[in-house]
Amino acid sequence: MNSPPTTWTPAALASSPTRCAVFSEPTWLLLDHFGILLGDLLMGCTVIGAVVGFVRRNDLRRWLRTNSFPEVGGEFDPAEQDWDAVVFTVSREEVPRWVMERVRPRSVAFVGTEQSRPVVERLAAFSGEHSIRVASSHTVDADDPADARRAVAAALTALREAGHTHLAVDVTGGKTPMSIGAFMAAEERQSDSIYVACAFDPRLKKPDMTTARILRISGG
Amino acid sequence: MNSPPTTWTPAALASSPTRCAVFSEPTWLLLDHFGILLGDLLMGCTVIGAVVGFVRRNDLRRWLRTNSFPEVGGEFDPAEQDWDAVVFTVSREEVPRWVMERVRPRSVAFVGTEQSRPVVERLAAFSGEHSIRVASSHTVDADDPADARRAVAAALTALREAGHTHLAVDVTGGKTPMSIGAFMAAEERQSDSIYVACAFDPRLKKPDMTTARILRISGG
Repeated sequence: MNSPPTTWTPAALASSPTRCAVFSEPTWLLLDHFGILLGDLLMGCTVIGAVVGFVRRNDLRRWLRTNSFPEVGGEFDPAEQDWDAVVFTVSREEVPRWVMERVRPRSVAFVGTEQSRPVVERLAAFSGEHSIRVASSHTVDADDPADARRAVAAALTALREAGHTHLAVDVTGGKTPMSIGAFMAAEERQSDSIYVACAFDPRLKKPDMTTARILRISGG
Repeated sequence: MNSPPTTWTPAALASSPTRCAVFSEPTWLLLDHFGILLGDLLMGCTVIGAVVGFVRRNDLRRWLRTNSFPEVGGEFDPAEQDWDAVVFTVSREEVPRWVMERVRPRSVAFVGTEQSRPVVERLAAFSGEHSIRVASSHTVDADDPADARRAVAAALTALREAGHTHLAVDVTGGKTPMSIGAFMAAEERQSDSIYVACAFDPRLKKPDMTTARILRISGG
């Protein structure tokens, strides 16, 4: 022990009287005992964990595999949100206009149908007037959730690639399959999904935006 | 080797004149030390990893499995489906009636709003005439997806407990937040979600059920 080897060669090892001299003999024993105890503990836990995991395998599988939605419902305060891009499913003009005025995103994307094409064009003009970039416009089949999901997913991917980080999907417009398709894309891309609730003015036959609130569907 | 130690301790090992002769004594020592260090390191990492993994288990799960929707879109053929119970979000009467006539479930449940309460009552009477059991009726806030999710989840749980195994949620009726809430509950309970698409008859001001198709939102 008095002359520890300077290099770790078999020759140096062979000449070492007991164990190697990097640590003293008591230190090696301590490490060894620590290893034995920790190893026993760990293997014990592994065996118990494996047994519990096997017995409750269906619970475990369900917990891992089932979709879940931890943050649902309630209201978003537009003043507190800093969404820098919003994707809209479009049927009427009022809601996207109101959201753009309140949220002031840097970019927007529209997902509409053949019927709502003129509305999308007017919304694009409105965005231009407010210095909001229109990243993309997609036309989808209003009855096909898979189509809306694809379009919204493509829009979200393009917005992420353009440097936007805090994205929201407004599922208010369009038929139910479109909204649910858009919601699926938001979930899969971990973006917030929102819905604008407001009273309908039966006299003017349009939404009364003075009563509008941004509701949280999921996320945030 | 002529007098093996009776107990297997490091001290006994160290005093044993020769270990087994496949490798030389220094090689065994080297392997032993390597094993001790690697074992301690590995077990230490395992313990830290397990603790961190447990504490951040929801992040881990999100990273592993963001919500995903593998089976979306397309049509369901009512003749090929054997749903034994259906949960409806209700606004109009026509769609749930048509689905009950086509699918012939053993039980149904209704999730409506204050406004659609008379519709739910008429649907319950219709179910009675067709020997379909009404398992439950819930009244929810049409703007709160969390409320609809809770009601549909409760209905699905009750139907499962009553022995029904093949469940569907029809999200056609109600406002978008109700439909999405119902969709979430269907996903979380691993039930099919469906939507009935049909043309709207502008003359009669009601859906033209001769054009109706059952679309798959998710599942099945």
